[in-house]
Amino acid sequence: MTTDLRDLIAIKRDGGTLSQEAITAFVRAAADGSAPEVHLASMLMAIFCRGLTDSERTSYALAMMNSGEVLDWTHLDRPTVDKHSTGGVGDKVSLIWAPVMAAVGFAVPMISGRGLGHTGGTLDKLEAIPGFRTDLSSDEMDAVLQAVGCVITGQTADLVPADRTLYALRSRTSTVPTVDHIAPSIMSKKLAEGAQTLILDVKVGSGAFMKDQHSAQHLADVMVAIGRGAGRKVHALLSDMSTPLGLTVGNAMEVEESVACLSGGGPEDLRDLVLDLAQEAVTASGEADRLGLPSAAQPLRARLAATLDDGSALARFEAMVQAQGGDVAALHDPTRLLGAADVSALPVFATDSGLITHLDALDVGLAAAALGGGRGADGQAPHPGVGVQLLVEVGQHVRSGQPWAQLRVASGSATAEALRLLDRALVVGAE
Amino acid sequence: MTTDLRDLIAIKRDGGTLSQEAITAFVRAAADGSAPEVHLASMLMAIFCRGLTDSERTSYALAMMNSGEVLDWTHLDRPTVDKHSTGGVGDKVSLIWAPVMAAVGFAVPMISGRGLGHTGGTLDKLEAIPGFRTDLSSDEMDAVLQAVGCVITGQTADLVPADRTLYALRSRTSTVPTVDHIAPSIMSKKLAEGAQTLILDVKVGSGAFMKDQHSAQHLADVMVAIGRGAGRKVHALLSDMSTPLGLTVGNAMEVEESVACLSGGGPEDLRDLVLDLAQEAVTASGEADRLGLPSAAQPLRARLAATLDDGSALARFEAMVQAQGGDVAALHDPTRLLGAADVSALPVFATDSGLITHLDALDVGLAAAALGGGRGADGQAPHPGVGVQLLVEVGQHVRSGQPWAQLRVASGSATAEALRLLDRALVVGAE
Repeated sequence: MTTDLRDLIAIKRDGGTLSQEAITAFVRAAADGSAPEVHLASMLMAIFCRGLTDSERTSYALAMMNSGEVLDWTHLDRPTVDKHSTGGVGDKVSLIWAPVMAAVGFAVPMISGRGLGHTGGTLDKLEAIPGFRTDLSSDEMDAVLQAVGCVITGQTADLVPADRTLYALRSRTSTVPTVDHIAPSIMSKKLAEGAQTLILDVKVGSGAFMKDQHSAQHLADVMVAIGRGAGRKVHALLSDMSTPLGLTVGNAMEVEESVACLSGGGPEDLRDLVLDLAQEAVTASGEADRLGLPSAAQPLRARLAATLDDGSALARFEAMVQAQGGDVAALHDPTRLLGAADVSALPVFATDSGLITHLDALDVGLAAAALGGGRGADGQAPHPGVGVQLLVEVGQHVRSGQPWAQLRVASGSATAEALRLLDRALVVGAE
Repeated sequence: MTTDLRDLIAIKRDGGTLSQEAITAFVRAAADGSAPEVHLASMLMAIFCRGLTDSERTSYALAMMNSGEVLDWTHLDRPTVDKHSTGGVGDKVSLIWAPVMAAVGFAVPMISGRGLGHTGGTLDKLEAIPGFRTDLSSDEMDAVLQAVGCVITGQTADLVPADRTLYALRSRTSTVPTVDHIAPSIMSKKLAEGAQTLILDVKVGSGAFMKDQHSAQHLADVMVAIGRGAGRKVHALLSDMSTPLGLTVGNAMEVEESVACLSGGGPEDLRDLVLDLAQEAVTASGEADRLGLPSAAQPLRARLAATLDDGSALARFEAMVQAQGGDVAALHDPTRLLGAADVSALPVFATDSGLITHLDALDVGLAAAALGGGRGADGQAPHPGVGVQLLVEVGQHVRSGQPWAQLRVASGSATAEALRLLDRALVVGAE
């Protein structure tokens, strides 16, 4: 087939609908470098301006998926499930959710990402554990999955190469912020990962990509439609990201908090969200019977909560860390986590007294990034040890002079900037 | 100023309005090659999809104009005027109109173009005259203008270089067919040419770029707004291009017909359009008094027509041909025109009898191109001698077996294809 991309660009430019063949030709040209970059740039903007239908988005995601290796877990004797979060502040859910799902009999082949700007990344958090490897081959993934039931690793070079090319080009052509590119990009990676069931945690609020309910719901709907169009079982939940999730923001600190949650403790909002997403996953999978799980909501939730309280989820996490080369002892001795030796504690004092009415996720995320915990656009690696520990929650009272947060700062931390951001983050009403 | 084009792209992408500074930065980046091509490609498509306001289009045209040399005729003691046609079949108006305007006292610094596809180009027609040069420098233009009052030449490399870059990129990015790019592109060249008054001949019909009245009127309005925004006197006329203009389509043949018109003869539709555009130009210029011309419509038209009937316009044309190196004798001896020796005559016979209800401009233009008279997208030079001479007009009767056109064919002409197109072009109703 000798398709001239310019004819396909003209169809979209004029508001038409692209066939599956047309979208495949476009994506293939991006992957194999056979089209001039200006063709790709023009098509990206035409898609941005004219939009895509559900079926075009599904074709787009499948074409990107098919540009590289597609993982296959049909040889496993367990149902496969995975979760995707659209990104937030303090979001360490994957570290807990994956072991929970493994503990009740699922296989979780999770390919995760790194943080960007004020949002943290699951891989960055796990890499605070000395030795933990996130560059597993698909054979190594398979081995961990068979032995433990869950694995969390990074994207290999063989997975969705077309998405990597187009992702870079979207940034260069100012065509990033549209669900028509974002949703197929996310879903192509999740589809290539090969899980039968996928749960989407779509964050909404100041610390999230989607700031309001309406746009978050739209993103959720679009991603669900893509996944179902591709024949997968997909459910989406919207979850709040107006305040940070849990009480810690920072890579090593979030590992500590995850272990606390896996040990039956930790902040309530974190435990609740983990269980919401686990419950939704079991329901979406339709595999409760096969795995001997209750199908009614209350008993199912209790069964899932038990994995946190009885140590079975923690055991899976420890086994995963061990299998991926990590120092399991560090999970129970935070001084062994990376960066622990370089940081010092710094309390943050309240300047007003009153009821805490808001604690802004974006500002706390930016503060943690200012301390060095973020991954810059220049790709600079985050400092694993720095971060923000919140000592209060929205709805509590605070007194002027009371420490309401504790920082871990390192040399190179922009501490003054972090303090300025945290001062703005905490909103205190009249007593 | 360190503008990141991506920020400007984002403004247009989101439907915003670009400032004059923003558009200038975009055009400058195209001209000096300082921006990656993918930025330019993305911006071109964003403009295509979101459109431009009148003031954005004026900024766009002025920025392209300012990317190169801008001609200045203020040292001349005569008012300057020019005409632009959006292109048609058999459109040799410039060869007649420019000498007419010179004969009544205007200076006409006309920079013209070449044909593309089925439409002819003024430069291609003039180059059928042996020796005629269309590559004058601006100093040479000035000399011809001072001596003769009119000059017709090609665009120099110094004129609107940004438009050349963007013109090529528009074709590669499928962003050509929109007035938002076309009108600023046309107007940038006309503004750089430096005439105070500009008359736009916007063609409408099968042989034109704009097929219907509405889109032609829109293009006219947009170009007039750009020109006026740039401080020029601009009028536009819509003229019919559903049938060819005059009775000849082919470069040498059109020179012959132009000389006939300049000698007081030639087809009536051609003479009428020349006089319409000349009358409009005098009115738009507001210079009738200064040049001692009647300002009332009827006497003005009579005065202009007199230049065709008394030989004064022909004298200007001959002087211009002489000044640009052309063989003046060829104007009165068609056997001296280029290509005359290579062609042979071939009559085209009618297959039906009846009233001629239509004679399609596009099909006649395509037939002339098939004979070798067109300029291909590959830049192949047109054959000056080939072409179509029409022997009938719409509204006349024709009999089966009667010759209704005469071809001039050369070796290499796709004669069968031309005959097929001409058969389709002629529509004969019931007797």
